[in-house]
Amino acid sequence: MARSSPPPLLFADTGTSSDQLYFSGVEVHDPFIAFGVGKRRLTLQSALEFGRVKKARTFDTVLPLEDWRARADARHPRRKAGVAEIIAEVSGHYRVRRFRVADDFPAALFIRLRELGLRLELADGPLFPEREIKSADEAKAIREGNRLSAIGLAAAEAALRGARRQGNRLMSGGRLLTSEDVKFAIESAILRGGGLSLSTIVAGGDQACDPHERGTGPLRPNELIVVDIFPRVVATGYFGDMTRTFLRGRASDAQRRLVATVREAQRAALKTVRAGVEGRAVHQQVLDTFAAAGYKTRRTKSGSVGFIHGTGHGLGLAIHEAPRLNSTAAVALKLGTAVTVEPGLYYPGLGGCRIEDVVQVTARAPKMLSNYHYEWELR
Amino acid sequence: MARSSPPPLLFADTGTSSDQLYFSGVEVHDPFIAFGVGKRRLTLQSALEFGRVKKARTFDTVLPLEDWRARADARHPRRKAGVAEIIAEVSGHYRVRRFRVADDFPAALFIRLRELGLRLELADGPLFPEREIKSADEAKAIREGNRLSAIGLAAAEAALRGARRQGNRLMSGGRLLTSEDVKFAIESAILRGGGLSLSTIVAGGDQACDPHERGTGPLRPNELIVVDIFPRVVATGYFGDMTRTFLRGRASDAQRRLVATVREAQRAALKTVRAGVEGRAVHQQVLDTFAAAGYKTRRTKSGSVGFIHGTGHGLGLAIHEAPRLNSTAAVALKLGTAVTVEPGLYYPGLGGCRIEDVVQVTARAPKMLSNYHYEWELR
Repeated sequence: MARSSPPPLLFADTGTSSDQLYFSGVEVHDPFIAFGVGKRRLTLQSALEFGRVKKARTFDTVLPLEDWRARADARHPRRKAGVAEIIAEVSGHYRVRRFRVADDFPAALFIRLRELGLRLELADGPLFPEREIKSADEAKAIREGNRLSAIGLAAAEAALRGARRQGNRLMSGGRLLTSEDVKFAIESAILRGGGLSLSTIVAGGDQACDPHERGTGPLRPNELIVVDIFPRVVATGYFGDMTRTFLRGRASDAQRRLVATVREAQRAALKTVRAGVEGRAVHQQVLDTFAAAGYKTRRTKSGSVGFIHGTGHGLGLAIHEAPRLNSTAAVALKLGTAVTVEPGLYYPGLGGCRIEDVVQVTARAPKMLSNYHYEWELR
Repeated sequence: MARSSPPPLLFADTGTSSDQLYFSGVEVHDPFIAFGVGKRRLTLQSALEFGRVKKARTFDTVLPLEDWRARADARHPRRKAGVAEIIAEVSGHYRVRRFRVADDFPAALFIRLRELGLRLELADGPLFPEREIKSADEAKAIREGNRLSAIGLAAAEAALRGARRQGNRLMSGGRLLTSEDVKFAIESAILRGGGLSLSTIVAGGDQACDPHERGTGPLRPNELIVVDIFPRVVATGYFGDMTRTFLRGRASDAQRRLVATVREAQRAALKTVRAGVEGRAVHQQVLDTFAAAGYKTRRTKSGSVGFIHGTGHGLGLAIHEAPRLNSTAAVALKLGTAVTVEPGLYYPGLGGCRIEDVVQVTARAPKMLSNYHYEWELR
């Protein structure tokens, strides 16, 4: 793709900025300067990080921060050189005076760099639009993330199956089985597998009706339990993201109809995902399925019920990235994009259900990047 | 403290922004709007987060994002209302036109809000300077973080003690004991304890000479092994941060002198930490101790050796926050501040050693917020 835009400039750490991780290819936990000069990638690193970053060989040039700070200090004798002065110094040396920066570039640095005469252009959309298109290696990394998600789902299923029913309780090892217990089973299995699962959701009953409630306290038999696992692969930084809804015991007819409808909506949505189709068309498919089955979405005094989130989102080095599959997504899906497909229905009293997989967009049926069965009623 | 500055405005998620977590007191994983009106705290939340955030009761007012988006859309019929238009709409309603924002406020949003007539002032320093002073509850949360660090150190020590020496190898369960094995032992113990340990360092031999190298592959007997553990307490978001350096086998005289000198430097630094003392004075104490013992810091072709990082940093909802203890820290330490004290020496061939604890600044000797023994030679 021809790019007339100027080279990128970043100042961020790789833990919080997926753009920085994408550009740098090496983890650094404090904010640092990185930029392009033509096709070359440069960074400034302190003595603390210099050797490690150099060894990673992901940058064409690693410059010692302390030297460039000293040069900037010499040019600005009246004030201590900050990040902006250092960037101005080094970019002047490389004769680059024009950069593109991300929407979320730090405002104070943006203003100071403009004062110093640099020409900064805010990227029109993502800083690296190519991040949306996943290479074969990236698709493999996302598959690996979902292999870890599946390990977590298996751990959750085993914990639920292994629990003993005692009236309205689920017991494990003589104690009440809790969301925390199941989360620990999931997260330690994923840790062993080489991933990190943060904010894992194991939410039963009405708790699951707040889709981002992580879940707490005893799990009950005969209740829908939403298990949403989005681990990061430590080695690559890529995410997996899968959800299944389980029930230990015997489901009611209403619960069965709910789960069947969500799965039907997911299948319908998956059939729609294809290069050239707009994200909102996929979302509409879910809305239509729910409407046809009579499930209504509405606001109540204590929050919204029904289908209260988007159908999916892009996935990669960030857990939520472009594109979105929701009512406002008027952009056509591109070949190679990886997206989650995760319809859900939430009704306090009845419970919540969400089923989520990840696919890669092709010209025909999407390629599944996640794999776990859909049995959910655990007798 | 009297504050003449305007109320804060934030647009960030709580996973990447510790300011947002501090202000909000509830985890939300996608960026959201939060701001002050006088002493009240307001936020806008989508249907997906609304109920959960409302239940947390940390905000005085939780507004439905969708309603305010619709109002902003109505006012700007020619363009889809973005975050800026929504902020302008809601702040207009509350008659607040002036906000202070952090240095790292997103540049694009900053510019658009100014175009919309809001007066934004970049905070002079941290957005919430009061974050540096830790309350009793915050000190307790950091202690809890360090209780988790100590659990991790104990797991590492047990793994090293439990290994069998076989010539130049450490064996465990019939396999070579690796950095990865020890990290898993640490991280799973911390997970069980209610914490998350990311980027745990278990680095032996020359690997430890890059202080941020996490460590990989087989660990060897008679080598210095740096174990640096900085877990986050899941329930509160506060961090612990402790380092010990172990050696399984028998240390050389040079290794013993290295470790003893680092510990001596830590003691000397700890004696200096007191309200009113500048961070650089604490750092100087370490430099003096190393100089007196003849340990030199210098740059080599493959990186720097000696004492190649600062003596410490503030700790709280962020792993690195104000203040710093380094050569440029010309600000007096404040009562109640929590800082790490972590001198280290690194010489490829000999190995690396770092010893790190956390203290709270008082008017006299600092209060220890971390606790683990200093035995390191594991026979």
